[in-house]
Amino acid sequence: MVNRVHTDPERLWSRLMDMAAVGATPAGGSNRQALSDDDRAGRDLFVGWAEQAGCSIELDGVGNLFARRDGTDPDALPVVLGSHLDTQPTGGRFDGVYGVLGGFEVVEALNDHSVRTRAPIEVAVWTNEEGSRFPVSMMGSAVWAGVLPLDQVRAITDRSGISVGDELDRLGWAGTAAFGKPLRAYLELHIEQGPILEASGSSIGVVTGVQGIRWFRVTIEGFPAHAGTTPMDRRRDPSRPLGLALSGLHDMAAAHAPQVRLTPAMFASEPVSSNTVPDHITFTIDMRHPDAATLESLDAELRSLIAQAAEAHGCQHQVEVINDCAPVVFDDECVRAVESAAQRCGIAYERIGSGAGHDACHVALKAPTGMIFVPCEDGLSHNEAESIEPEAAGRGAEVLLHAALDLADTAT
Amino acid sequence: MVNRVHTDPERLWSRLMDMAAVGATPAGGSNRQALSDDDRAGRDLFVGWAEQAGCSIELDGVGNLFARRDGTDPDALPVVLGSHLDTQPTGGRFDGVYGVLGGFEVVEALNDHSVRTRAPIEVAVWTNEEGSRFPVSMMGSAVWAGVLPLDQVRAITDRSGISVGDELDRLGWAGTAAFGKPLRAYLELHIEQGPILEASGSSIGVVTGVQGIRWFRVTIEGFPAHAGTTPMDRRRDPSRPLGLALSGLHDMAAAHAPQVRLTPAMFASEPVSSNTVPDHITFTIDMRHPDAATLESLDAELRSLIAQAAEAHGCQHQVEVINDCAPVVFDDECVRAVESAAQRCGIAYERIGSGAGHDACHVALKAPTGMIFVPCEDGLSHNEAESIEPEAAGRGAEVLLHAALDLADTAT
Repeated sequence: MVNRVHTDPERLWSRLMDMAAVGATPAGGSNRQALSDDDRAGRDLFVGWAEQAGCSIELDGVGNLFARRDGTDPDALPVVLGSHLDTQPTGGRFDGVYGVLGGFEVVEALNDHSVRTRAPIEVAVWTNEEGSRFPVSMMGSAVWAGVLPLDQVRAITDRSGISVGDELDRLGWAGTAAFGKPLRAYLELHIEQGPILEASGSSIGVVTGVQGIRWFRVTIEGFPAHAGTTPMDRRRDPSRPLGLALSGLHDMAAAHAPQVRLTPAMFASEPVSSNTVPDHITFTIDMRHPDAATLESLDAELRSLIAQAAEAHGCQHQVEVINDCAPVVFDDECVRAVESAAQRCGIAYERIGSGAGHDACHVALKAPTGMIFVPCEDGLSHNEAESIEPEAAGRGAEVLLHAALDLADTAT
Repeated sequence: MVNRVHTDPERLWSRLMDMAAVGATPAGGSNRQALSDDDRAGRDLFVGWAEQAGCSIELDGVGNLFARRDGTDPDALPVVLGSHLDTQPTGGRFDGVYGVLGGFEVVEALNDHSVRTRAPIEVAVWTNEEGSRFPVSMMGSAVWAGVLPLDQVRAITDRSGISVGDELDRLGWAGTAAFGKPLRAYLELHIEQGPILEASGSSIGVVTGVQGIRWFRVTIEGFPAHAGTTPMDRRRDPSRPLGLALSGLHDMAAAHAPQVRLTPAMFASEPVSSNTVPDHITFTIDMRHPDAATLESLDAELRSLIAQAAEAHGCQHQVEVINDCAPVVFDDECVRAVESAAQRCGIAYERIGSGAGHDACHVALKAPTGMIFVPCEDGLSHNEAESIEPEAAGRGAEVLLHAALDLADTAT
């Protein structure tokens, strides 16, 4: 079977570059933080293209945008393709943007070839995926999926005190489309943001799910004392359990290789004085694993080794969960649709888990969901140097097109 | 032999409380930061007392103040007793203040008993010992002893950009007395700021010297990477060498017990993001030992174990010395004068090293120097709760009086 419909990689690349110019940074990245004027300018550019392509536009109450190409069956549920257009403050040109414009390239390709699908095709632009200006990531899809209430999200403020609600009203983005409407399927095309595909040489990652993510804030409490006058055996110095705990945590991660991810970060201590034994030291741990039960047992192991380290040196400690996302397993039909599309396109692929969270995690709570990854240079993301090959971008959109056609049923 | 001259512990305590009321904090401490209006008010209070007691007042170019009670021999070098009146922002009532007012109590006791000494007695108030507002500690005595040039010190600014020179001029403290003039002896009475005397039950610490102090700033450099997508075996995570280094440092300290003091502090990491492997982690190490050669060998061992930890995990590192004070051994005649005074007063004493730096460290470069410690509650200092017993304060002043008389030679 030879595919008779194709995406246009040059048009896609040109649109990616046009979008990157909105909020372009001197170092070659983009800065379109959520609900800013630059975010609006990026969306306006997209809406112009979508309307020119014959799409109708809908907004829901948290500003999620859906550009719809009707199908032949008015009762068919839509196949939704999408991601986000907002970026980190020093963001790259592809994170999120590629999923939106790749989805829109599918619409354009269907127009080019006058293909009508039974199900409508919609391109989704989720609001504030990055969470850098308003500190909750994957915000729009969370409200859409019922994970967060709209009122709570509207009240979130940025550093200058402006709220999400203020900005939604100012931009005219508080629409009326229903949250969580039934979908035939949701597919999100994304750069891998990691090094696995680049290392293996696969052009496509057929994403099977997203690993569970749990963030901890750890506090080890000692007793502040004069660095010069207090004998060592009379101290409760939290840096002793810190050393033990860090070594223990890394040993634990090594023992559960290769699937666990464990990242201690955000180290701080008080008082900020070099000649006082710290009163307390704090740090965070980002721990991830694709299997929920394993994540639970690692959680218990983590708590136990921090407790042992603290107790061994007379220190108190606290371990607090500050973020918790269960592992997501994507819909088998969507995974197979992506895999089969890659096969039909003759593109080298492999099954892969996602290390990062995506809007697809929330959508998966409501609808059959899948994701497609393409390799990115050095696995680099959240960085102005983030880069992909134009050919790789084209291959991803082509697989997305054929997976979408599979799920949407070609009518003519 | 029965001592016929005595200090008045009630007068001393009353003066300590009067001084504590200048810049008193709600939590019961004092806030008289160097060269502030509160520091001036404290000095003005002292100068009033000193002039009433018949002393003449002299200032040198960095604001060090000397209140002089003449001796009978115009050619005799002065015996100087002193410390500082400036405090930490949340300082206690005794650190420094006790050495100045204890020294002045000696003058008052000599007046009470109409004792004339051959050598003059001077009470010294050194400028900015704490270094909390203007960030160099023991500043005034450093200039006096030629350790720091006056010009450099005058240029030091506080957080609001006001310089030491500005404040010296504003307060009229830039005097003309010579720096580093020859002294018969310098004695500094101070609270121990540590728990040793309290634990042993000794009322007096005959201080034999001050341990060497070296401060390091350590940076361990990794490579920032996405916490979710980067496989563990592809990371250069600086928290791995941090764990190893902390354990190694504490093991090293334990192996050199009990004389070494080792304090890792001021932990920080960048970027401040819980889902990124840190680019780098920084911390300080305060290391102290009374023996210069041992301090050098510990320095080498410290560098070696940090280097090994970093290299074991593919990280770069830097170890920078940010402060370095050689160990001080006090003058044998001064040490014996203090010890003999304690014996004659019938007060339980022990020889002790100082864990903290004091103005006496600088003065010792120029003149025979000794120190006297008294126990303080729970060894607590640099804290508004810093406390000593009135009886302990009196015993320290009494020993200071008799050591000073020994060194100054009673004339009548």
